[in-house]
Amino acid sequence: MKQSLNLAPGRPGLRTPALLRVGAVSAGLALLAAPAHAAVTAEVAYVFNTLLFLIGGFLVMWMAAGFAMLEAGMVRSKHAAVICLKNIGLYSIAGLMFFAVGYNLMYMNVDASGGFFGVALPWSPSELAGDEAIDLSTGYASASDWFFQMVFVATAASIVSGAVAERVRIAPFFIFVAVLTGFIYPIQGSWEWGAGWLDSRFGFSDFAGSTLVHSTGGWAALTGVMLLGARTGRFVDGKPVPMHGSSLPLTTLGVFILWFGWFGFNGASQLALGSVADATAVAQIFANTNMAAAAGVVTAYLVSMVVNKGKPNLVMTLNGALAGLVSITAEPLTPTIAQAIVIGAVGAVIATYGTLLLERLRLDDVVGAIPVHLFAGIWGTMVVPVTNESASYFGQLAGVVATGGFVFAASFAVWLLLKLTMGIRLDRAGEAAGGDLSELGHPAYPEFVAPKPAE
Amino acid sequence: MKQSLNLAPGRPGLRTPALLRVGAVSAGLALLAAPAHAAVTAEVAYVFNTLLFLIGGFLVMWMAAGFAMLEAGMVRSKHAAVICLKNIGLYSIAGLMFFAVGYNLMYMNVDASGGFFGVALPWSPSELAGDEAIDLSTGYASASDWFFQMVFVATAASIVSGAVAERVRIAPFFIFVAVLTGFIYPIQGSWEWGAGWLDSRFGFSDFAGSTLVHSTGGWAALTGVMLLGARTGRFVDGKPVPMHGSSLPLTTLGVFILWFGWFGFNGASQLALGSVADATAVAQIFANTNMAAAAGVVTAYLVSMVVNKGKPNLVMTLNGALAGLVSITAEPLTPTIAQAIVIGAVGAVIATYGTLLLERLRLDDVVGAIPVHLFAGIWGTMVVPVTNESASYFGQLAGVVATGGFVFAASFAVWLLLKLTMGIRLDRAGEAAGGDLSELGHPAYPEFVAPKPAE
Amino acid sequence: MKQSLNLAPGRPGLRTPALLRVGAVSAGLALLAAPAHAAVTAEVAYVFNTLLFLIGGFLVMWMAAGFAMLEAGMVRSKHAAVICLKNIGLYSIAGLMFFAVGYNLMYMNVDASGGFFGVALPWSPSELAGDEAIDLSTGYASASDWFFQMVFVATAASIVSGAVAERVRIAPFFIFVAVLTGFIYPIQGSWEWGAGWLDSRFGFSDFAGSTLVHSTGGWAALTGVMLLGARTGRFVDGKPVPMHGSSLPLTTLGVFILWFGWFGFNGASQLALGSVADATAVAQIFANTNMAAAAGVVTAYLVSMVVNKGKPNLVMTLNGALAGLVSITAEPLTPTIAQAIVIGAVGAVIATYGTLLLERLRLDDVVGAIPVHLFAGIWGTMVVPVTNESASYFGQLAGVVATGGFVFAASFAVWLLLKLTMGIRLDRAGEAAGGDLSELGHPAYPEFVAPKPAE
Repeated sequence: MKQSLNLAPGRPGLRTPALLRVGAVSAGLALLAAPAHAAVTAEVAYVFNTLLFLIGGFLVMWMAAGFAMLEAGMVRSKHAAVICLKNIGLYSIAGLMFFAVGYNLMYMNVDASGGFFGVALPWSPSELAGDEAIDLSTGYASASDWFFQMVFVATAASIVSGAVAERVRIAPFFIFVAVLTGFIYPIQGSWEWGAGWLDSRFGFSDFAGSTLVHSTGGWAALTGVMLLGARTGRFVDGKPVPMHGSSLPLTTLGVFILWFGWFGFNGASQLALGSVADATAVAQIFANTNMAAAAGVVTAYLVSMVVNKGKPNLVMTLNGALAGLVSITAEPLTPTIAQAIVIGAVGAVIATYGTLLLERLRLDDVVGAIPVHLFAGIWGTMVVPVTNESASYFGQLAGVVATGGFVFAASFAVWLLLKLTMGIRLDRAGEAAGGDLSELGHPAYPEFVAPKPAE
Repeated sequence: MKQSLNLAPGRPGLRTPALLRVGAVSAGLALLAAPAHAAVTAEVAYVFNTLLFLIGGFLVMWMAAGFAMLEAGMVRSKHAAVICLKNIGLYSIAGLMFFAVGYNLMYMNVDASGGFFGVALPWSPSELAGDEAIDLSTGYASASDWFFQMVFVATAASIVSGAVAERVRIAPFFIFVAVLTGFIYPIQGSWEWGAGWLDSRFGFSDFAGSTLVHSTGGWAALTGVMLLGARTGRFVDGKPVPMHGSSLPLTTLGVFILWFGWFGFNGASQLALGSVADATAVAQIFANTNMAAAAGVVTAYLVSMVVNKGKPNLVMTLNGALAGLVSITAEPLTPTIAQAIVIGAVGAVIATYGTLLLERLRLDDVVGAIPVHLFAGIWGTMVVPVTNESASYFGQLAGVVATGGFVFAASFAVWLLLKLTMGIRLDRAGEAAGGDLSELGHPAYPEFVAPKPAE
Repeated sequence: MKQSLNLAPGRPGLRTPALLRVGAVSAGLALLAAPAHAAVTAEVAYVFNTLLFLIGGFLVMWMAAGFAMLEAGMVRSKHAAVICLKNIGLYSIAGLMFFAVGYNLMYMNVDASGGFFGVALPWSPSELAGDEAIDLSTGYASASDWFFQMVFVATAASIVSGAVAERVRIAPFFIFVAVLTGFIYPIQGSWEWGAGWLDSRFGFSDFAGSTLVHSTGGWAALTGVMLLGARTGRFVDGKPVPMHGSSLPLTTLGVFILWFGWFGFNGASQLALGSVADATAVAQIFANTNMAAAAGVVTAYLVSMVVNKGKPNLVMTLNGALAGLVSITAEPLTPTIAQAIVIGAVGAVIATYGTLLLERLRLDDVVGAIPVHLFAGIWGTMVVPVTNESASYFGQLAGVVATGGFVFAASFAVWLLLKLTMGIRLDRAGEAAGGDLSELGHPAYPEFVAPKPAE
C-alpha cells in the first residue's frame, strides 16, 4: 500500500481532526527533504492545495453539464427542455442546500452525535483573504474545500434526474433534490468523510465516492423509479419496448464531459498537491482513472455485441465508460494500470448486464443510471481491498450496506410522501404530450420534429 | 472590507503603476510570514500568478463557445450556421484588434492623456522566456496578462452577436466588432482598469467587469437592436409574437459553458495567486460566483412561473443563471455567501422583468442579452458599496453613467454609419430565407427541418 | 532564438537522456537567482511540472470530444451514431495500446536500436506516491508525463476517423487504430521525441507535433481515403457533389473544443512550468497559439468568399482555425505575435485550397482532415527555421519526408491487409441505409429525420 494513503485515507472536510493529515503530508515531506528550510513551504503548499480544490471543483461542476447533455440526448425530444431545466435546477438547489445545512451536517462536530451526523447550520469560511493572519494548519482555503465538496453533492443529484426522466414532475423532483442534497447525502457522508462511525469503527474506505456519491445517487434513483413506475408504453405484455434517445451525439458529448470532469473528481480527491508525494499521487490517479474508463469502453463495446446479436450498441458502449469510471472511483490510487483496466472492464460487464436485469424487473431507468452508478459503484467499493491493504472486505461491505440501507429507506420515504401529497408523476395526457408542452408550454426543438397524427 | 482588496482593487494591465500592487501583495505577505527567507519566493509567486492568468484565460476563451452554443440554440434553424460563423469570427477579430491596437490603447501611458486613453500601438511582451534575466517586479509573464485581458474583450463582443441575431448581415457585424474591440472597449477600459480618470478621481470599482465588460457589451447590443429594428414578424399589431429557439439543449449547454468559464472570469480577476491571501481570495470568489448563479436560477425559475401563468420557462431560468453571474462580477470577493445569493437573486428578477420591458418597448433582443448583461450589470455595479466599503454609490454611478454614455454614443455612431453606407440588415427575402441560405448558401441542418410550403 | 529553447528543445519522454534537460532549466535558473537557497526548489518545480502535464493532459483529452462533435456534425445523420462510437472507441484503444506497447516503444532505450525504435513493453511508472524517497531528477511524476503523451497519440487517431467517415466499417477501423497507436505512431515518434536518429543526426525540430502528431494522422487518413474510395455519390461524372454535414452547430462546438484544448497541446509541450523562464514560455505559447488560430479564421473566411463566388463558407472558416492551430504547433514559442499571425494565415490558405485540390483528385475526405492536419502540418514544420535558428530547412525536410514516407507506407500496408482480408468498407446497401442502421441497428436521431422514400 502507498504511504501517502496512510496519511490521507479518507476525504475529510474542514472541521474534522482528519483534516490535519493534509498538513501532515507536507510536514512529513519537509522533514524528509529539507534541512535548513522547507523545500515546499507551508505557504506554497497552501496555494497548491487550494489550487487543486479549485481546478478539481470546476471540473466536477462541469460534470453537471455532462449529465444534462447525456440525459437530453437520451430522452425523447418532447421531454428534452424539461430535462435541461431539471439539470440546471438541481445543480443550483444542491449548492444552496449544501450551503444552508448540508456541509456542516456532514462535517461539523460529527463526533458529538456519536459519528452519525453533524450540525445543520449554514456554512461559513474559516478565514478570509483580508485576515491579518491566515491559519495554515488545515493546508488550504476553506472556501476551496467547500466548493469542491459542494460539486460532489450536485453529482449525486444529477444521477437521479436521468433515471426518473420523462415522467416525474418538475416540482416534486426539485423538492426531492433539496432533501437529498441538504440531508440524505450529508448524513451518510458524515459517517465516512465526516470521520463518523463508518470511518472510525469499520475502516470503510471510499477514496472519491463510488459509494458515497455514485451509489447514493443510484439508490435514490432506484426508489424514484420504483415509486414512479415505468414510462407509458415502455413495457407491453411484459416485454420491454425500446425507446430511443432523441440525440445520441448529445449523449456522447455528455459522456466525454463526464470523463473529462472525472479527472477532477478523482484527482482532486487526493485533497493535496503541495508535496512531491501528493503530486505523484494525483498523476497516478489521472492515469488509473483514464484507463479504467478506456477498458470500460472496449469491454462494453464487445459485450454489447454479445447481447445484441453481433451488433454493437452506442449507448451501452458509452455507459461502459461511465461504469469504468465509477468502478475506479472508490480507489483510484493504489491499483496498477493493469489492475485499473481489470476493475473498469468488470464494471462495464456488470453495468451492461445490469441494464438487462433492470429490464427484466420492469424497472424503467431512462439512461441506465442505476446499473452504472449503483451496480458498478458497489463493485468498485468491494474490490478496494484487492489493491489497498488498509481496507477490509468486511469494512467495505459495512459501508455498502449501511449507506444503501439508509439512502434507500430515506429516499423511498421522501418519494412516497411526495407521491401521497402533491403527486410525483405527470398525468397520462401530460406524459403523452411530453413534459415540455405540458409543464413548460414550449418545445425543445420546435422545428425538427414533424407532428405525427398518431402521437 | 478585505485587506487584499486594498492591495489589488482595480484590474490593471501591464504598464500601469497600479500593476505593482500585485507584487505588493506577495511582498507584504512575505514580510508577515518569513523571517529568514520568503515563504513564497518572488519566483514561485511569478509562476503561480502566470498560471492563474493562463487557467483563467482558457476558461474565459471557452466562454466564446458558450455564447456560440447559447445563440445557436436560440435562433431559428435557418440562421444557425450564420450565428456560428459570427461567433468564431468575432472571437478571432477581437484577438487581432486587441493585439493591433486595443491592449495598449487601454493600458499604455493612460496618464499621458489625462486618463482618457492610452496609445494605439501593437502589443508586444515585456520579457521573453529566453531573456538572460526576467524582471519579477510585475509578478507575472506579460503574455499571460495579455491573453487574459484579450479574452475579456472577446466576451464583450459575444454579448452583441446574440442580441442582433437573425437580421444583421455578417460583414457590417464584423466591422462593428473590430471597432468595438479595437477602440470602444479599450478606451472605456482605460478609464478604470487602465488606471485612468474613473479610477483615480471617482474610485469606481468593478472587480471583473459587470460594467466594463458586460454593460459595455449590453450597450453596444442595445444600439444595434435599435438601429436594426425587430425581426420581421416579431411584433404584430404591437403585440410580441414568440419566436422559439431551434434547440434549447444547445442553449442549455451554452449556459453551462458560460457558468464554467465564469470561474476563470471572476476568479482570475484577483490577478494574483502567489500568496496565501490571494489563494484564499480566489477560493472565496469561486464560492460567491457559484452561489450568485445558483440563486439566479432558482429565482428566475420561480419568477418565470409568476409571469407565465404558473408554468416555468427554460430560457428565463437559464438567463437567471447568467444574470446572477453578471450581478456578482462587479464584486465577487467581499460579499458573504448569503450576500452573494441575494445579489444573484435580485439580478435574476431584474433580468426577467427586463426581458418583458424590452418586449413592451418593441426592442427585439433574440437571446435576452440586454437584460442579462446590461440591466443586471448595472445592478451588480451599483450594489458594490454594500459589501465593499472602499466603493461609493456616487463613484459607482459615475462609472455606470460614463461608460454607458460613451459606449452608447460611440456604438450608435458606428452602427449608424454602417447603416448609412453599406447597410446592416438582411433584405426581406434574405431574412425570410434565413441568413444561412442567403449569406452562406448552405444550411446548418440540411436534414432536420422539413420544408414548409408556407414559410 | 530563445534560451529556454536551447534547454528543452525536443519533447522527450521519461527514459531518454534528453529528459534531464527539464531539470536543467530549473537548476540553471536556480543558479541565476538564488544565492543561499533555490528560489524555486526542486520539490516545488516537480509539483509545477507535474501540474502542467496534468492540466495539459486533460485539455488534450478533451480534444477527443472536439473531434467527436466536429465529425458528428459533418457526417450525414444516418452515420452520426457510428462516428460517435468510433471516436470514444479510438480514444480508449489509443490509451490501451499506448500503455501496452506504445509508450516504451517510443521512449525506452531508443539508442539501443540505433535510434529507430524503443522496446515494446508495457509502461509502468518510475516512482509511486508512497515511495520512501522520490527521485526529483526528471523533474515530474512519470505518470503525468505518460498521461500527457498518451492523449497525443489519441489525437493522431482522431484525425483519421473524420476523413474515412461514412463508409469505413467499425471493426477494421478499430484494428487500424490499434496498429497506428501501438506501433506506427510510437515508432516514428521515437525518431524525434524519443531522441532517435531524426533528433540526433538531423536536428529536426517539432515542438508540439505538426509533423509527429498532425501529419502522422493526416498521412494515415490519406491512405485510408485512397483505399476506401469515395462515398457513393460523392463524385458524379467526375464532378464533386456536395454532401452537407447534418449539424454545423455541433461542428462549430467541436472546433471550439479543439481550440480550447490546443492551449494544453502546445502550452504543456513546454514540458516544464517550474521556473520563471518556463512560465514565461508557456504564456508566449498560449498567445501565439491563439493568434495563429484567429488569423486562420479571418483568412479562411476571406478566402472562402473568393472560392465560393462571394459567399463565405462556415466549414472552411472553421477549418481555418484548425489549420492555423496545426501550423503554429511545430513552433509556438519562438515566433512573435505578428509572425504567428502570418503562419496561421498562410496555413489557412493552404488548407482551403488543399480542400479543393483533394476534390480535384477525387479523394473524399469528409471533414477536411488531410488539408488541415497534413498540408498545414507540413507548412508549419517547414516554416520553423524562420523563427527558430536552431532548426534548419534540411533537417525539417528530412523530418517531413521520413515521417511521411514511413507513416504512409505502413498505414497503406495495414489498410490494404485489412481490405484484402476482412474488408474495410460498408457494402452498398449498408452505406445507403447508413452506418447507424446497418452496423448498430439504431439511429442517432430517431425523431428528427423524416424517412424519405427516395433515399
